Amino acid sequence: MHILNLSGIIFGLIGIIFTVFLTFKVLENSPGNEKMQKISGAIQMGARAFLISEYKILYVIVLIIFVLLGLINGWKMALSFFLGSTLSVSAGFFGMSIATKANTRTAHGAIESLSKGLKIAFNGGAVMGMTVASLGLFGLGLIFYLTNGDTVSMSGYAMGASLVALFARVGGGIFTKAADVGADLVGKTEAGIPEDDPRNPAVIADNVGDNVGDVAGMGADLYESFVGSIFSASALGVLVYDKEGAVFPFLVVSIGILSAIIGILVFNFSLKNKDDVDPSKALHFGTYIANGLTLLGVLFLSLMILKTINPFFVIFLGMIVGMIIGSITEYYTAKSPIKHLANSAVSGAAPLLISGMAVGMESTAIPVVLISIATIISYNLLGLFGIALAGVGMLATLGITLAIDAYGPIADNAGGIAQMAELESYVRERTDQLDAVGNTTAAIGKGFAIGSAALTALALFASYTKVTGLNIIDLSKSQVFIGALVGGMLPFLFSSMAMKAVGEAAEIMVQEVRRQFKEIVGLMEGKADPDYSSCVSIATKGALKKMVFPSLLAVFMPIIMFFILGKESVAGMLVGTTVSGVMLAIFMANAGGAWDNAKKYIEEGNFGGKGSFAHKASVIGDTVGDPFKDTAGPAINILIKLMSIVSIVVIPILMKIFK
Amino acid sequence: MHILNLSGIIFGLIGIIFTVFLTFKVLENSPGNEKMQKISGAIQMGARAFLISEYKILYVIVLIIFVLLGLINGWKMALSFFLGSTLSVSAGFFGMSIATKANTRTAHGAIESLSKGLKIAFNGGAVMGMTVASLGLFGLGLIFYLTNGDTVSMSGYAMGASLVALFARVGGGIFTKAADVGADLVGKTEAGIPEDDPRNPAVIADNVGDNVGDVAGMGADLYESFVGSIFSASALGVLVYDKEGAVFPFLVVSIGILSAIIGILVFNFSLKNKDDVDPSKALHFGTYIANGLTLLGVLFLSLMILKTINPFFVIFLGMIVGMIIGSITEYYTAKSPIKHLANSAVSGAAPLLISGMAVGMESTAIPVVLISIATIISYNLLGLFGIALAGVGMLATLGITLAIDAYGPIADNAGGIAQMAELESYVRERTDQLDAVGNTTAAIGKGFAIGSAALTALALFASYTKVTGLNIIDLSKSQVFIGALVGGMLPFLFSSMAMKAVGEAAEIMVQEVRRQFKEIVGLMEGKADPDYSSCVSIATKGALKKMVFPSLLAVFMPIIMFFILGKESVAGMLVGTTVSGVMLAIFMANAGGAWDNAKKYIEEGNFGGKGSFAHKASVIGDTVGDPFKDTAGPAINILIKLMSIVSIVVIPILMKIFK
Repeated sequence: MHILNLSGIIFGLIGIIFTVFLTFKVLENSPGNEKMQKISGAIQMGARAFLISEYKILYVIVLIIFVLLGLINGWKMALSFFLGSTLSVSAGFFGMSIATKANTRTAHGAIESLSKGLKIAFNGGAVMGMTVASLGLFGLGLIFYLTNGDTVSMSGYAMGASLVALFARVGGGIFTKAADVGADLVGKTEAGIPEDDPRNPAVIADNVGDNVGDVAGMGADLYESFVGSIFSASALGVLVYDKEGAVFPFLVVSIGILSAIIGILVFNFSLKNKDDVDPSKALHFGTYIANGLTLLGVLFLSLMILKTINPFFVIFLGMIVGMIIGSITEYYTAKSPIKHLANSAVSGAAPLLISGMAVGMESTAIPVVLISIATIISYNLLGLFGIALAGVGMLATLGITLAIDAYGPIADNAGGIAQMAELESYVRERTDQLDAVGNTTAAIGKGFAIGSAALTALALFASYTKVTGLNIIDLSKSQVFIGALVGGMLPFLFSSMAMKAVGEAAEIMVQEVRRQFKEIVGLMEGKADPDYSSCVSIATKGALKKMVFPSLLAVFMPIIMFFILGKESVAGMLVGTTVSGVMLAIFMANAGGAWDNAKKYIEEGNFGGKGSFAHKASVIGDTVGDPFKDTAGPAINILIKLMSIVSIVVIPILMKIFK
Repeated sequence: MHILNLSGIIFGLIGIIFTVFLTFKVLENSPGNEKMQKISGAIQMGARAFLISEYKILYVIVLIIFVLLGLINGWKMALSFFLGSTLSVSAGFFGMSIATKANTRTAHGAIESLSKGLKIAFNGGAVMGMTVASLGLFGLGLIFYLTNGDTVSMSGYAMGASLVALFARVGGGIFTKAADVGADLVGKTEAGIPEDDPRNPAVIADNVGDNVGDVAGMGADLYESFVGSIFSASALGVLVYDKEGAVFPFLVVSIGILSAIIGILVFNFSLKNKDDVDPSKALHFGTYIANGLTLLGVLFLSLMILKTINPFFVIFLGMIVGMIIGSITEYYTAKSPIKHLANSAVSGAAPLLISGMAVGMESTAIPVVLISIATIISYNLLGLFGIALAGVGMLATLGITLAIDAYGPIADNAGGIAQMAELESYVRERTDQLDAVGNTTAAIGKGFAIGSAALTALALFASYTKVTGLNIIDLSKSQVFIGALVGGMLPFLFSSMAMKAVGEAAEIMVQEVRRQFKEIVGLMEGKADPDYSSCVSIATKGALKKMVFPSLLAVFMPIIMFFILGKESVAGMLVGTTVSGVMLAIFMANAGGAWDNAKKYIEEGNFGGKGSFAHKASVIGDTVGDPFKDTAGPAINILIKLMSIVSIVVIPILMKIFK
C-alpha cells in the first residue's frame, strides 16, 4: 500500500523528466534569422515582464494568506497553500517561457515544411501541458505522502492553485484583450493595415497577450482544475474506500500522465520523415491513444485496488460526456450556426449580435443535460466519489489535451513573427493552416474543461458540506435561498468588472496607438519604428490594476456570507454561483467563439469576404466576443471553484474560532 | 368576518366602476382630424387583429388544460383556471383598445396644451392600470369567496393568469421588436428617413407593436404578478393567521385600489385649468399619494385584523426596497453610466456593446442585495407570509403604477400619429416631452415589478414545498443540485428562443420593407402609399409561430423533471430557474435600457449628435438591446412564476395519480 502513496511523486517526477527531454527537443530547433529572433525576444521580454509584475502583486496576497493560515491553523496547511501557489506560478512561467521560444522556431520550421512547424508547435504546447500536469501531480502527491493523505493540507494546496489561477486568468485575460482590441480597432479598422503588421504599435503587446493570457493564464487555469479535481476525489474517496479511495485518484492521474507521454511520442513518431501530413488527424490520433490507454489502465486499477468495475464505468462515462460536450461546443462555434451568423451579418452588426447571443445561450442546454446525466449515473454507481472521479477522468490526460490548447497560440504567434519578419508568404499560409487546426482540435479539451469544472464544483460543494458538518442544506430555509440568490449574482458582477477592465484598458490603448500613428513621422511608410513598449506597459498596468478586486471578491464573499447569515447560507451561495456561473461561462465562451469563427468564415470569401459590409459587422461581433470568451468566460469557472475551496478552507477555521 | 371575505369582490367592482367612468373621460376628447383618425384606426385594427389571432392559439391550449384539469382534478379548479385566463385576456384586450383610442386623442390634446396631452395620455394609461388591478382582484376575490378561501382553486386562477401572461409577453414582445428592428434598420439606417415617417412600410406595424407588446403584454404581465402575489400571500397567510391571514392580502390590495383611485383623481385635479405643468412632478405626486394612503390603511388593518404592527413594517419595507430598486434601475439606465456609454460609442459599436453589457451585469448586484435584505427582515418579522406580503405591498398600488407604465407607449404612439398626420412640429415636440417623462417616472413601477417578482417567486416556491409535503429540500442530494442546474439553464434557453424569434421575424421584415421601397413606384417621393398591412401580417405570423414552444417549455419542464427525478428535484429546478432568471432578467432589462438612453443622449447633440460615428454605433447598441429589454428580459420573470405555479397545481395531482 505504501508504494501506492508514492505514485503522485513518482509519476510526477517521470512527467518532469519527460518535460525536460521535450524542452531540449524544442530548443534544438533553429530560432530563425536575426529579425525573427529580435521579434521573438521582444515578445518574450514583454511576457516575462508582465508575469513578474503580476507575481509581485500576487505574492503580497499569497504571503498575507500564508501567514494568516499559519498563525491561525498551523503551518502544515499554510505551507501546502504556499507550495500549491508556487508550483502553479512556476508551471505558468516555465511553460510560457518555452512557448515564447517555440513560436519563432515554429515559424522557422514552417519554412522547411508544414509537418516540421506542426511538430515544433505541438511539442512547445506539450511542454506546457506536461509541466502543468507533472508539477500539479508531484506537488499534491508530495503533500499527500508527507501528511499521510491529510485532506485539510490538501485543501490548502488546492486553494493556492485556485488563487493563482484566478489572478492569472483575470490579469492575463485583461492584458490580452486590451491589446487585441486596441491593435484591431486602430490598426485594422482605422488605419487599414493587416493583422500583425510591424507598423502597428500594439502588435507586440498583442502577441505578448496571446502568451500571458492564452498560454500562462490557461495553464494556471487547468493546473487549478487538475489539482481541484484530484483533491476533491481524494477527499470524498477516503470516506467510502478508506486509504484505497484516497489514493485512487492519484493512480488514475498517474496512468493519465504515462498515457499522455505515450500519446505525445506517438504523435512525434507519426510525423517522422513525413513532409505531407494532415495536422488535425495527427493531433486527434495522439489524443485518442492517450485516452484509450488511460481507460485500459483505469480498468485494471478499478478491479485491482477498489475491487469493483464501477470506477472504470464512471471515468469512461466522464470521457464520453466530455467528448460530446466538446463536439457540441465545436458544433455551435464552427458548424452550421456559424454560417447562419455570417448570413445575419449581411443585415448588419445588430442582427449578428442578437443571433450570436442566442447561439451562446442555446449552447448551454445540451452540456447541462449531459453533465446532469453524468452526475446522476456516477452518483448511483459510486456516490459523491463517483461524481468527483468522473471529473478526474476528464482531466487525466491533461498533458496532451492542454498541449493541443497551448499549441494554438504558439502557431498564432509563429504567424505573427512570419508576418513581422517579412518571411515569404507561403510560410504565413502554413502557420495559418496550423493555427486553424488548433482551433478545432481544441474542442475536445474545452469539453473536458467545462465538464470537469462542473463536476468538480459539485464535488467541492459536497466536500464543503462534509467539513462543516452540514448533513442537510435545506433550500426551504430563506437564508439558504438568499444565499443562492446572492451567489447567483456574483458571476454577473464578476464578469461586469472583467469586461469593464478590458474596455477601459482598450480605450487607453486605442488612444496611444492613434497618438503614435499621428506623431511618429514616417511610421506608416515603414521608415520609423513604433514604440512597442509603451503599448505593452499600458496593457500591463491596466491588467494589474483591475485584476485585484474581482479576485478578492471570490476570497471574501464566502467569509462575509458566513458572518452575516451562517454556514448553511454559504452552501446556498456556492450552489447559486455554480448554477448561474456554469451557464454564463458556457454562454460567453460559445457566443465569443461563434462570432470569432463567423468573422473567419466571411474572411474566407463568403457573403462578400473581407472589406464587405458583412465583414465589418463581423469584426464588431468578434471584438465584442473577445472579452466574453477570453476574459470573463474562462475566469468564471475558476471563480466558482475558488469560492468553494476558500469555503472549505476558511469556514471550518472560522467555525472553530467563533464558537 | 364574512364581510371581509367579500372585500375582493366589492373593491374589484368599485375599481371596475371607476374604470368605466375614466374610459368615458378619455373618449369624450376629440380624436383629431380625419387623417389622424385613419392612422389611429389602422393601428387599432392591426393591434386587435393580432390579439385575436394570439388568443385563438392561446385558447386551444387553455381549453386543453381546462378539460384535463376538470377531468383529473375536478371542475372547481378547472373553472378557476378558465376564469383567471379569461379575465386576463379581457383586461389586456380592453385596456389596449382604450390605449389605442387614447393615442390620437393625446396627439390632438397636445395641439391645445402640454397638460391636456398629459392628462389624456395618463388617463388612457390609468384605464389599463385600473382594468388590470380591478379585474385581477375581482376575479380572485370571487374565487376566494365562492370556495371559502380554497387555495387549490386560487392556484388554478393564478395559473390561468400566468399562462396568458407568458403568451402575451412572448408573442407581443416578438411582434413589437420584429417590427421595430425592421422599421429602424431599413427606414432610419438605410433609407435615411426619420422615425414614424409615413413612407416607411413598417411604421404602422411598429406602432401596433407598441400596443400589443408594451401595453397588452405588460398588462398581462402585471395582472399575473398581481394575482400571483395575492394568491401566494393568502395561501401562506392562512397557515399562520388562519382566516384572517388568508383574507389579509385581499384587504391590502383593496386599500391599494382605493388609494390608486384617489391618486389618479389627485393627478387630474392638479392639472385642472393649468396649461403650464411639470409632468414628472405631477406623475410622481399621484404615485406618492397613492402609496402613502395605502400605508396608512395597512397600518390600520394590521392593528385591527392581525393585532400586530409587523405586516405594516413588512409592506413599508417592501415599498422602500421597491423604490430604491427603481432608483438603481434609473441610475443605471439614465444617469452617469449612460454618459459613459455614449462616450465609449465614440470608439465604436464594439466598446459600446461591451460596456453596455458590463453595466447591465453590474446592475444586478444592488437589487439582489436589497431583495435579500427585504426577504430576511420580512421572514424574521412574519415568516414566509412576511415575504409574500412584502411582494403584495409593492403591487398594491398597481392601478397607478401601471398607469404610468402604459402612459409611455400612448405618448409614444401620439408622437407617431402627430408625425404621420403631419401636424405642426410643436405638437411632436410636446409629445416627445411627454414620452421622455414617461421613461423616467416608469422607474418606480419597474422597481416594484422586479422586487415583487423575486419575492413572489420565493413565496410560490414556499407554497410548492407546502402542497407537496416537502419539509426539507436538501441541496446536498445530487438530484436536487441537478434540478437546480437544469433549472438555471432554462432562462438561457428560453431567452435564446425569444431572441432568435425576433431575429428571424425582423429579417423577413427587413426584406419586405426593402422590397416595397424598391418596387412601389413613387413611395419615397410620397406619391404612393406603402402596403402597411403586409408588414403587420409578417410580424403577426412571426410572433404567433414562435411564441408557442418557449411558452410550453415552462409548462412541461416541471412535469418532465418530476417524472425523471421526482418532486424534490422540481424544487431544485424552481430555485435554479429563479436564481439565474432573476439575474438574466435584470441584466437584459438594464443593458437594453442603457443602450436605448445612450442613443437618446447622443441624439440630444452630445458626442457629435445625430448622424455621427458615435450615433451609428449607438443605434446598433439600441437595436441589440431591443429584444433584451422588451422581449426576453420581461418574459423571464413570468417564466419563473409560471413554472412555480404549474408545479404547485400539477405536481400534487401527479403525486395522487402515481402513488
